[in-house]
Amino acid sequence: MIVVMAAHATEGQIKDVEQRILDWGYDVHPIYGAERTVIGAVGVPDADKGQYMEALESLEYVERVMAILRPYKFASRELHPEGTIINVKGVPIGGNQVILMAGPCTVETYEQTYESAVACKAAGANILRGGAYKPSTSPYSFQGLGLEGLKILRAIADELDMRVITEVMDTRMVETVCEYADILQIGTRNMQNYDLLREVGKCQTAVMVKRGMWAKIEEWLQAAEYVLLGGNPNVMLCERGIRTFETYTRNTLDLSAVPAAKELSHLPVIVDPSQGTGKRSLVQAMTKAAVAVGADGLLIEVHPHPEAALKDAAQQVTTTDFGRMVEELKPIALAVGRTI
Amino acid sequence: MIVVMAAHATEGQIKDVEQRILDWGYDVHPIYGAERTVIGAVGVPDADKGQYMEALESLEYVERVMAILRPYKFASRELHPEGTIINVKGVPIGGNQVILMAGPCTVETYEQTYESAVACKAAGANILRGGAYKPSTSPYSFQGLGLEGLKILRAIADELDMRVITEVMDTRMVETVCEYADILQIGTRNMQNYDLLREVGKCQTAVMVKRGMWAKIEEWLQAAEYVLLGGNPNVMLCERGIRTFETYTRNTLDLSAVPAAKELSHLPVIVDPSQGTGKRSLVQAMTKAAVAVGADGLLIEVHPHPEAALKDAAQQVTTTDFGRMVEELKPIALAVGRTI
Amino acid sequence: MIVVMAAHATEGQIKDVEQRILDWGYDVHPIYGAERTVIGAVGVPDADKGQYMEALESLEYVERVMAILRPYKFASRELHPEGTIINVKGVPIGGNQVILMAGPCTVETYEQTYESAVACKAAGANILRGGAYKPSTSPYSFQGLGLEGLKILRAIADELDMRVITEVMDTRMVETVCEYADILQIGTRNMQNYDLLREVGKCQTAVMVKRGMWAKIEEWLQAAEYVLLGGNPNVMLCERGIRTFETYTRNTLDLSAVPAAKELSHLPVIVDPSQGTGKRSLVQAMTKAAVAVGADGLLIEVHPHPEAALKDAAQQVTTTDFGRMVEELKPIALAVGRTI
Amino acid sequence: MIVVMAAHATEGQIKDVEQRILDWGYDVHPIYGAERTVIGAVGVPDADKGQYMEALESLEYVERVMAILRPYKFASRELHPEGTIINVKGVPIGGNQVILMAGPCTVETYEQTYESAVACKAAGANILRGGAYKPSTSPYSFQGLGLEGLKILRAIADELDMRVITEVMDTRMVETVCEYADILQIGTRNMQNYDLLREVGKCQTAVMVKRGMWAKIEEWLQAAEYVLLGGNPNVMLCERGIRTFETYTRNTLDLSAVPAAKELSHLPVIVDPSQGTGKRSLVQAMTKAAVAVGADGLLIEVHPHPEAALKDAAQQVTTTDFGRMVEELKPIALAVGRTI
Repeated sequence: MIVVMAAHATEGQIKDVEQRILDWGYDVHPIYGAERTVIGAVGVPDADKGQYMEALESLEYVERVMAILRPYKFASRELHPEGTIINVKGVPIGGNQVILMAGPCTVETYEQTYESAVACKAAGANILRGGAYKPSTSPYSFQGLGLEGLKILRAIADELDMRVITEVMDTRMVETVCEYADILQIGTRNMQNYDLLREVGKCQTAVMVKRGMWAKIEEWLQAAEYVLLGGNPNVMLCERGIRTFETYTRNTLDLSAVPAAKELSHLPVIVDPSQGTGKRSLVQAMTKAAVAVGADGLLIEVHPHPEAALKDAAQQVTTTDFGRMVEELKPIALAVGRTI
Repeated sequence: MIVVMAAHATEGQIKDVEQRILDWGYDVHPIYGAERTVIGAVGVPDADKGQYMEALESLEYVERVMAILRPYKFASRELHPEGTIINVKGVPIGGNQVILMAGPCTVETYEQTYESAVACKAAGANILRGGAYKPSTSPYSFQGLGLEGLKILRAIADELDMRVITEVMDTRMVETVCEYADILQIGTRNMQNYDLLREVGKCQTAVMVKRGMWAKIEEWLQAAEYVLLGGNPNVMLCERGIRTFETYTRNTLDLSAVPAAKELSHLPVIVDPSQGTGKRSLVQAMTKAAVAVGADGLLIEVHPHPEAALKDAAQQVTTTDFGRMVEELKPIALAVGRTI
Repeated sequence: MIVVMAAHATEGQIKDVEQRILDWGYDVHPIYGAERTVIGAVGVPDADKGQYMEALESLEYVERVMAILRPYKFASRELHPEGTIINVKGVPIGGNQVILMAGPCTVETYEQTYESAVACKAAGANILRGGAYKPSTSPYSFQGLGLEGLKILRAIADELDMRVITEVMDTRMVETVCEYADILQIGTRNMQNYDLLREVGKCQTAVMVKRGMWAKIEEWLQAAEYVLLGGNPNVMLCERGIRTFETYTRNTLDLSAVPAAKELSHLPVIVDPSQGTGKRSLVQAMTKAAVAVGADGLLIEVHPHPEAALKDAAQQVTTTDFGRMVEELKPIALAVGRTI
Repeated sequence: MIVVMAAHATEGQIKDVEQRILDWGYDVHPIYGAERTVIGAVGVPDADKGQYMEALESLEYVERVMAILRPYKFASRELHPEGTIINVKGVPIGGNQVILMAGPCTVETYEQTYESAVACKAAGANILRGGAYKPSTSPYSFQGLGLEGLKILRAIADELDMRVITEVMDTRMVETVCEYADILQIGTRNMQNYDLLREVGKCQTAVMVKRGMWAKIEEWLQAAEYVLLGGNPNVMLCERGIRTFETYTRNTLDLSAVPAAKELSHLPVIVDPSQGTGKRSLVQAMTKAAVAVGADGLLIEVHPHPEAALKDAAQQVTTTDFGRMVEELKPIALAVGRTI
């Protein structure tokens, strides 16, 4: 770390800071400039020395402390130059093929989910998505079918030879959801629910960490680090839009986060254009952009009859639209050297 | 709700929308303008008809759907014009007195907590704050003492006749934290952890819902609604800063959220200037502003030796500073007709 | 517009609002619900009745006023269903071909600009970009060569049969810049510099309005409306990134703004991935995404020797990179039915 | 500045960077850590060496470059420890007295302005505010009376012994506005209109630089630096709310920017709670908070009949409210050791 001393810092105060840094085990490299003294501290290998940085910043004779190393280790591409490929029961995520995860926003009935799944599978989706436990801003909205929804997903996926991705919201439900799902989704609202991250870190089921709508890319990678540190190496990321001042779209889908996350980390990156825009009319164009920018997979809400959906109707595409959309994605995938 | 039809909507499509609305039990009031047809729908009393709104928005011949009613009921001042006063074992929150909740960011040792608590109590704080379970962005940071921390807080608070506020992060820990704490804090990262909100809604211990750093005021009130709807009426709000583009401060403390929340809701509103600014040099000025703007209480991090703190050192004030700060708050409280 | 009366509004107050609306020339359509009275007002055709909306909102017995119509007219696709194609001396912008605008961030010397321009032209760029007047956050940074820079741009463009796009920052310079440039760029910082918008609205030179880094899509369209209303129909838009909390990238390039602007408006939309990301390593991926999402053109900073650039070195690609990048864009353009 | 080399940087690349830094006139202080080499560069005194930083960042073997010094000099408190007091024809801004700047949002007629001014003066305002040239998001909104408005302001201010503050939007109008106004307001939209900043830097009339709704505190100070560098020392700042995701308020008034700007800079800081909230019901509480937080003055929109205002009706307080509000501010000013 780099410690910038205050302009008014005395020689004694500079010595005090140097001593503290030495006591923590760092080597000290002071640079005495005309306007500021700057102290470089190196030699302590841990990914996060945030506590020391804050302690120094709390001194009134220290102006600022700046980190040098990235605050994560297992998620970093530096220690793991090759991109990770996660094998989800035979479906590779992070490889050359762009993976389609599709299905209804919410599992409402067996019939609605089945109708959606059949169409998604026919169009090329290998992974069935659907919410059994739903995070709803309003307590008066539909909260999902729960266990019943998990069973519907599993039964349909097994019949159609698909894998299941679904959200787990509560530490107490991790074990149950693991029984039915092949990928556990950590939703945007739970990206910093650390007990949940630790809990899914204890199992080996693949985990998709959605970016918090308030989260910087590095914080998102630190959330993934919680899971990896817990012992579960099967982690993928999902960009789903961040919160900005724009109101025309539901969120601002940050596609630059895909190449950014991929240069910082070896983990696969999925894109969710449905949540990201909240508008069916924009989903198709953003899906194309997601493939062009290098996404390893797409998470798309497909409902046979969107206008009858119990949740998020406005952002679900029809089964017919989905089929056509996938056809249009193929030449783009090809153009960036991938298949779909 | 108000449905704005698309410019190109046909007569048949307008009829279709009217029929759907009638089928849901609304009365229909169409307004045929020259450029748009607008359909008013009234008569369905639920706080949230979001599902119907989204279903209509998913139709390509509907341009927009706008809500009329606020999406919460129990949290609304409309149904509850008097401000709520919560009695925390004899300490009234929401009344004329501005309540001081103070103590270390994190419970590190009995001694550090005791030293802070004695000073806070002497300066006028009735409620002892301190983190036993800590949400940390980095998995490598100190995560708190856990149960041991709860016991330290309770023992010291009992000795000094204080109440305890501390964070609960996991549904599985609600029962345990209730045993030791008088107010359960829902942290900013968990504001939309709905299972946790439902769980604290089942007990009667007071709950402080911190605003999510990404949350609009109305979403914050909906989080409170989850707890109220669960059966726990003892809910207070806490403004602690939102995430913006500014980097000089850790968050942007939104003091306008205090009068805004108070005009929309009857719940008490606390302000946390420590988390809100992240900078000790700004805490004092923002604390004064919080009292002037009408906060019902303050949550302040006080550490006997901030530069030795294990977490968030940069934003903790010293015990000496805290005493002086409270003295300076008194005339401001008086100026707005309150005591401290 | 739709006026939502306060819950406590009396019959007399409702009548008062109705009378005001009638006096302004609207037809009045009240809807008396159980919890709120809502008044629909139609029949006043102007694009913006913001003044009336605000007057009503200032009444304490009015809760909210909601607009029905979009606040722009000439920029709207509603009145102009076909997309606009702007002919810039034979180069069509908004048609089937994706237009490349490329060149150095800043005109530093004739040689540097020439070297960049030759390479850009060879790679397929028809429009030469380069800053002669530079908006710099710091007064100590290079502010551009001014008139000398304009002359360099014009001379090189003429020699290579290219068109010139460059920024105009001051009303007093519009006439001069029109002499040398084929497209006037309104920079992000000046998107709401209304005198400047009015001034460029008086000429017929094409204008590119960059989105303010704080601007909602509808505000961006209103900025374009200023120019169109002034009498200049040759307006194109440029998405260049908005300001968010993310710090890894310089801005957050909002690619969903491209299809969004195109569904709301008939104006061509250009994308600037250089400013949008601020990082050379991300420019290439975002350029591909921009083509896939439907951009009508790209604005790319190309410097023969980025590390020697006087401004924004970090986001400029090399001439070699640019050539390769364009080759990789061609199959993507083809995949979305366009040429490049 | 501090240069963090990439993890993969070779010895030759490290030498290359060191040589470049030496060539620019810096002293070089390398620190060879196990995971990164960091190079400290000191000895070049200019406030902004941004160009060098960007040049280094553009090298693929450099990971990051971090500034040590603040990017402004004349605006910095470091070189000017005492707070600046600006004398506006006998009214001191930045001293012990909190200055009231009040009047209508927009000058509509002589009568409306006079009625507002008389009430403001009676309540204690020494400075009359009012827009003659109005920046309006919509080209269809009222754009102000222009020169006629300036004359009305001057005539009324002279009669009532007040000073005039009004906005100047265009470089061509600076001379004219200087004839009529005592303080030139640079509006939020023009905070980075550098030609305008340079132009007002050439005169000696006091200038109030409003914070851009997208601007970090340091960028705001750099805008002030443009004016100071131009030779005009009479610069004050004005916090007026930043743009965030919150939609209940028009902007988020960032009161922490007041103590932050005052610790970084010696310039007086004014607060505008009218624009900052956009809601009359919140103005009063935020005004109290602004005084408590340490504002040197307040800019408040006061209209005799807000509901008849031509612009921004929703945020203007009545003349009666204003008088009462000032009375309530007095004890708060006293509590923070000031007068009003």
